[in-house]
Amino acid sequence: MKPSVRIVLVNTTHAGNVGGVARAMKNMGLAELYLVQPCKFRTYDGYARASGANDIMDNAVVCEDLTEALSGCTHVYGTSARSRTLEWEDCSARECAAQIGALGGSAQVAIVFGRERSGLTNEELALCHHRVYIPTDPSFASLNLAAAVQLLSYEIRMALEGDSPAPAAAAAVRKEDEPAPADAMAHFYTHLESTLVGLGFLDPENPRQLMRRLRKLYQRAHPTRSELAILRGILSLTDKAAAKDR
Amino acid sequence: MKPSVRIVLVNTTHAGNVGGVARAMKNMGLAELYLVQPCKFRTYDGYARASGANDIMDNAVVCEDLTEALSGCTHVYGTSARSRTLEWEDCSARECAAQIGALGGSAQVAIVFGRERSGLTNEELALCHHRVYIPTDPSFASLNLAAAVQLLSYEIRMALEGDSPAPAAAAAVRKEDEPAPADAMAHFYTHLESTLVGLGFLDPENPRQLMRRLRKLYQRAHPTRSELAILRGILSLTDKAAAKDR
Repeated sequence: MKPSVRIVLVNTTHAGNVGGVARAMKNMGLAELYLVQPCKFRTYDGYARASGANDIMDNAVVCEDLTEALSGCTHVYGTSARSRTLEWEDCSARECAAQIGALGGSAQVAIVFGRERSGLTNEELALCHHRVYIPTDPSFASLNLAAAVQLLSYEIRMALEGDSPAPAAAAAVRKEDEPAPADAMAHFYTHLESTLVGLGFLDPENPRQLMRRLRKLYQRAHPTRSELAILRGILSLTDKAAAKDR
Repeated sequence: MKPSVRIVLVNTTHAGNVGGVARAMKNMGLAELYLVQPCKFRTYDGYARASGANDIMDNAVVCEDLTEALSGCTHVYGTSARSRTLEWEDCSARECAAQIGALGGSAQVAIVFGRERSGLTNEELALCHHRVYIPTDPSFASLNLAAAVQLLSYEIRMALEGDSPAPAAAAAVRKEDEPAPADAMAHFYTHLESTLVGLGFLDPENPRQLMRRLRKLYQRAHPTRSELAILRGILSLTDKAAAKDR
């Protein structure tokens, strides 16, 4: 069981930002949105930016104050700029996500985001158990509200879900799309060498490590069987042209 | 020295999204924005969402096509939804950032983002060396453009500024051993195509995705400048042989 994660926005003043937050949450699989004294947000702008995350807009819980919005929460993170003093338990977004990833299914986590311009007050931060900051360029540190929610939701998803497993379809690779086996590669290199001699590009008396360099190049590409067939086809036509040229 | 990282947006249709991207980049310390055939973006909406990242808006480079926007780039990542087939070198945002973190200061990286609704075309993805995806809830996977740029810029900042070791040895790479830039790769593909037509291997009337497949192969190999010079030399001699053959 995974912990529940609630996003709490305090005093949001732009409906578009609430919509952007709803979309960002849904992209990362989060659903619980709590709003403390928000602006009117179920508006055209709000739904436009939500871009289909209407369920999150419709189910958002509007609260009178932060205490109400945190009711039932066992782990509360307040977002803030990185503090200069280290008197709080500061953690980065990634550290916060790692902590959440280590919690059990009975935990109820809240991540609290402040006002667009001024963030959370000291009184509001005092209701939080930890401070979390998002690493940014210190000379331009103010993130858009939806962007901040996006980054934290993403880190939480990465911690809870990991990078979702490879799609099952990968098992069904066609034979021609498999990497060419070593003996087919060896035949290709022999053919390539003789073609290059025929073209006059490779002087067998003075090979200058040319084949070694070409092997390295093609080895890195890891050609499939069908790609190797294309390369062999080109070599055969080149051989023909070079033969008539002589 | 750290690699340079360029953000490339293709055919953006909302000025607000360009502004949101500029802000997201500046928050994470990125500055180079390239726009391929964008909407009019230096508008009230654009600057409003940029929220002070005006330098990035003002210095954004507008390009006619993606090839122009990638000129000089040694490592090109195209963003896309997670592919089902895995035939490409897919990597997650975090893996992509780790790769960039391991590059030296001479690398020029581009991260390419597609249209708001439809992403990048197959032709555009074919110009990219790797595909990068952002892990999301598969049932609601479409990220806002600025949010996608925010997440990748953040991962790149974490990789470049975090505790990843600086690649000291990378300084000593000889120029010819550097990855060939995107424009040199584009010239190579043009040459390859004309050589294959000359050989009679490629029928312009019925190209059967041949060039797309060869691009994929060579892109995976990430040729160096000197390797590309070898390949071009082979093509030139093949051209000569094919010309006499006619």
